[in-house]
Amino acid sequence: MNANEKFIAAEAHVDAAAVAPLPNSRKIYVEGSRADIRVPMREITQSDTSESMGFERNPPVFVYDCSGPYTDPNARIDVRSGLPALRQAWIDERGDTEQLSDLSSEFGRQRAADKSLDELRFPDLHRHPLRAKSGRNVTQMHYARQGIITPEMEFIAIRENLNREKYIESLRASGPKGEKMAAMMLRQHPGQSFGASLPQTITPEFVRDEVARGRAIIPANINHPESEPMIIGRNFLVKINGNIGNSAVTSSISEEVDKMTWGIRWGSDTIMDLSTGKNIHETREWIIRNSPVPIGTVPIYQALEKVDGKAEELTWEIFKDTLIEQAEQGVDYFTIHAGVLLRYVPMTANRMTGIVSRGGSIMAKWCLAHHKESFLYTHFEEICEIMKAYDVSFSLGDGLRPGSIYDANDDAQLGELKTLGELTEVAWKHDCQVMIEGPGHVPMQLIKENMDLQLDWCKEAPFYTLGPLTTDIAPGYDHITSGIGAAQIGWYGTAMLCYVTPKEHLGLPNKDDVKDGIITYKLAAHAADLAKGHPGAQIRDNALSKARFEFRWEDQFNLGLDPDRAREYHDETLPKDSAKVAHFCSMCGPHFCSMKITQDVREYAAQQNLDEQAALARGMEEKSIEFVKTGAKVYHNI
Amino acid sequence: MNANEKFIAAEAHVDAAAVAPLPNSRKIYVEGSRADIRVPMREITQSDTSESMGFERNPPVFVYDCSGPYTDPNARIDVRSGLPALRQAWIDERGDTEQLSDLSSEFGRQRAADKSLDELRFPDLHRHPLRAKSGRNVTQMHYARQGIITPEMEFIAIRENLNREKYIESLRASGPKGEKMAAMMLRQHPGQSFGASLPQTITPEFVRDEVARGRAIIPANINHPESEPMIIGRNFLVKINGNIGNSAVTSSISEEVDKMTWGIRWGSDTIMDLSTGKNIHETREWIIRNSPVPIGTVPIYQALEKVDGKAEELTWEIFKDTLIEQAEQGVDYFTIHAGVLLRYVPMTANRMTGIVSRGGSIMAKWCLAHHKESFLYTHFEEICEIMKAYDVSFSLGDGLRPGSIYDANDDAQLGELKTLGELTEVAWKHDCQVMIEGPGHVPMQLIKENMDLQLDWCKEAPFYTLGPLTTDIAPGYDHITSGIGAAQIGWYGTAMLCYVTPKEHLGLPNKDDVKDGIITYKLAAHAADLAKGHPGAQIRDNALSKARFEFRWEDQFNLGLDPDRAREYHDETLPKDSAKVAHFCSMCGPHFCSMKITQDVREYAAQQNLDEQAALARGMEEKSIEFVKTGAKVYHNI
Repeated sequence: MNANEKFIAAEAHVDAAAVAPLPNSRKIYVEGSRADIRVPMREITQSDTSESMGFERNPPVFVYDCSGPYTDPNARIDVRSGLPALRQAWIDERGDTEQLSDLSSEFGRQRAADKSLDELRFPDLHRHPLRAKSGRNVTQMHYARQGIITPEMEFIAIRENLNREKYIESLRASGPKGEKMAAMMLRQHPGQSFGASLPQTITPEFVRDEVARGRAIIPANINHPESEPMIIGRNFLVKINGNIGNSAVTSSISEEVDKMTWGIRWGSDTIMDLSTGKNIHETREWIIRNSPVPIGTVPIYQALEKVDGKAEELTWEIFKDTLIEQAEQGVDYFTIHAGVLLRYVPMTANRMTGIVSRGGSIMAKWCLAHHKESFLYTHFEEICEIMKAYDVSFSLGDGLRPGSIYDANDDAQLGELKTLGELTEVAWKHDCQVMIEGPGHVPMQLIKENMDLQLDWCKEAPFYTLGPLTTDIAPGYDHITSGIGAAQIGWYGTAMLCYVTPKEHLGLPNKDDVKDGIITYKLAAHAADLAKGHPGAQIRDNALSKARFEFRWEDQFNLGLDPDRAREYHDETLPKDSAKVAHFCSMCGPHFCSMKITQDVREYAAQQNLDEQAALARGMEEKSIEFVKTGAKVYHNI
Repeated sequence: MNANEKFIAAEAHVDAAAVAPLPNSRKIYVEGSRADIRVPMREITQSDTSESMGFERNPPVFVYDCSGPYTDPNARIDVRSGLPALRQAWIDERGDTEQLSDLSSEFGRQRAADKSLDELRFPDLHRHPLRAKSGRNVTQMHYARQGIITPEMEFIAIRENLNREKYIESLRASGPKGEKMAAMMLRQHPGQSFGASLPQTITPEFVRDEVARGRAIIPANINHPESEPMIIGRNFLVKINGNIGNSAVTSSISEEVDKMTWGIRWGSDTIMDLSTGKNIHETREWIIRNSPVPIGTVPIYQALEKVDGKAEELTWEIFKDTLIEQAEQGVDYFTIHAGVLLRYVPMTANRMTGIVSRGGSIMAKWCLAHHKESFLYTHFEEICEIMKAYDVSFSLGDGLRPGSIYDANDDAQLGELKTLGELTEVAWKHDCQVMIEGPGHVPMQLIKENMDLQLDWCKEAPFYTLGPLTTDIAPGYDHITSGIGAAQIGWYGTAMLCYVTPKEHLGLPNKDDVKDGIITYKLAAHAADLAKGHPGAQIRDNALSKARFEFRWEDQFNLGLDPDRAREYHDETLPKDSAKVAHFCSMCGPHFCSMKITQDVREYAAQQNLDEQAALARGMEEKSIEFVKTGAKVYHNI
């Protein structure tokens, strides 16, 4: 599919780049307490350590897998019919939802009736949305607070543990050196968790408890049964979000669906559809039906479309209809900028860059035009009623986040954060799930203050930050200026990091930019997991480093976040296949390889049981003669 | 020039990409107390704020400029004759050096006599090296300790202040809003400096004092008079180093010279030539003669070439001859791995990745072969004698740095660091300038320990780290995994950050990789300057953010670290020139721009002198009527 082609629904097909399994990787499913809890993971097979380096079997490593059925060769993928509804039975058997005979939103019905949209509409017209039965509450938080462990919670517990038990078993079973190898591969530096509670093993009960306390959310709209459950919370693996979305200026439906499948392939845990152009209702349907990860949106964008971009003409009724429209499509979390209070708006007048959040500036404009608090704030409890009828999670928007280093941590930003904390408690009264959005642009020395205040004021509701960018001076590289801040704030306790692409401030990301943003944020999130001391986080680093040291080039590539790029970079200098088994690389050439020399040192130390005291006792001369005698070279067998 | 062409000295020419001035930029020179102290800076001109946004003159911003005469349209560049010897008079007038009639190193003389090298040799055969007169010490530290402020020190003081006084003057003179604008543009968040002393203005005396105390170094070999003085120390701007260098496998002389001019164009403060291939003597000469920044090397690499790669055959004599050879060419700092002690070597046997420093592994191999301490350690005072005869600075190498997260902060690494602290004190006895190399691969929570121990054990000698990489799982993206660590350790007090390119662990960097590495490290260093609270550091962020907010697209590009990429990314979506003056961009389209809406908010607040109390008093209704009356839209003039 191509952005310039006319999009025709009947001809829609999956992006070929999104479906091939990654090299030496296999999709596996870990089964839970019932046959329909099948948790996907990616198993990366490794080769053995060569004989010359002391043969060892290197068991497969399991990694978190957001890519859904696309990377499963046994799955039949047809974007025109969408993904299988893996959660449908779980939702149905709870018996607290009802299927609606028609869409509840006026706008939704209008679009459905518009024949001119048939050509680009998602084909399944017969889908009927679900809604909570009258008086029922279908949020995962509600279940959690009733003490119910849902299949979603069990799924998540299995997912977060990453099949670690199996890996440990395989290490131990890998031969006579098994125990030693297990000790080595599992060794990890103690973390610095700043108060996070990270159990060795995540149990379904732990998941339930965290959700009940509001410290984690499971974005899982009952109308998005295709989604594979995942969790966002400080005591779980740090997650990342990738934004996609067309604008009035550019981009088509197919391009956005491609960006979604591309983004999850590289590890986006959730996707936000930030479209603002025309046909966003139809674009969203395509994305949700084909997405195995939760989808977030900013409903005010679409509401604004409905009033031709005139913020002051927005009304609660239009907004409410938009919420329902999107909730019935299956959006899993809504950014709601309900913290933009009238009194905060003038605080932005002396900023360097004013209000940079699109939603924030829309609401600010509305507040000024009407000179009263926004309908998001005044109707907040009604919004909660909608959220809990579909289990849409709140992502309380930081409409007043700083858009420059200059504006970081100012009164407007922190005032809004405090209000978001108050709204969190309101939402929790309704058992609605809540996360809190955060900045933005913040110099390093001010990042921790953001986290500390958020934990305090928002009562440990998960924090979800955009970066933050740690300097403004590198347009074109803001995935990196912000990756630095993201790694830090993730370490301090942020639960999900919203990616920034190299195009930030400059243009709309293409697929390459999406990938650069995703990988940058995956590595930042992982650096944060390591720093917090998340159990098992170092396994992948250890495995990759071992492969690197043992010149298992293919394994080094495949254990990395982007095997394709690693291989491509290697092959630029040493393209031959033989180079990928060579015990040297292009950086130093065959004679200068420090890894190779180290092997020598290690074997020598092992062989001679080298110990300084013993060596001194036996006399230095003798030792050096021995060493030269044994060839003073690499790879003599022990 | 191209890597595959045969290199012919007589036809050598400068890389065209390295000489064009950057857009809207002008090379200026700030004169010191004497006419031959002319400190280069880059002046970036800005356009005025548009009438509709409240006309303002935006004075030029001055930025640090490492690019040397290459970006000066008035300079005549011919790589065959090298750069002008800007420091020659300063060196000569000190009267403590003598011109040698011939090279002192045997190897140097041998190469000079080899006719077969004529074709690739740097053409100026008539250069005679300088050396300190017998009994004299020509280090900047020696002068500093005598209380002498050298022209180099004055040059540096001017350079570090970045013409800030001039900028402030221009702000104030920019019209009736001048004072207000100055206050805004100079505003900066308080830093967290972890004990660094950052004076508001850097004086020549401050530079002298820091150098005398060993807290900063000025790498300035008397045989590299072409270099523009710069300083490396915790109380100055954080610097970055870019590595270049061919290997036996690939790369040619011309390619390395191109990488050097390319690297300094984007901001490399020093360049390390890590060549290991053949003709490294000749390559180095080309690089030094054409480099306006200090050049560092690892002499053991070349020494090893001389013994055909057999580490155990290395001798003090061969190494000493190499030091002198390179010192007489003009290398400004030497990495010397003198801290790799015999007792530390076995400590690496149980590492995941052993010894990954090439120099470290060479020395470890030597130590084991001879079973005694290395000649670097046993002859350390003799090395000092050489260093002070040419003013080559020590970069005490971290031969035992960790090569994986697993190995971070282990006994071998920290043992060596402690030894480097002891050697620092030995070098200081000789008034030799010293910086200390640091890791490597370190998870975030262990980074600060590195800095704290280094400051303590090495008595505040400048720290110079490679990254560190904060995770191992992203080969192909290690400029980013390490940029995260670099920004942090720079904040904590590291004086210079050695870049890592995307090719790290995979292959040799090409020019694109060099640029990616440099820009990543420039932004990390700048993020660190901001976080430390370096005076004036926020000026560039503020100026760029103001340009961004005012839709001065060209200024936004030009104030960034990489104007070319910023423009390219912008033009991918909105290529027309008109888009660069448009008050919106491709991300949101004309109707959704938050910046545009914010203007509205700001003007409204200004116009109405909006104040919550006042507004409430006058009644909300009235306000909203007013707002709608005035058009409820953007850009109504005040």
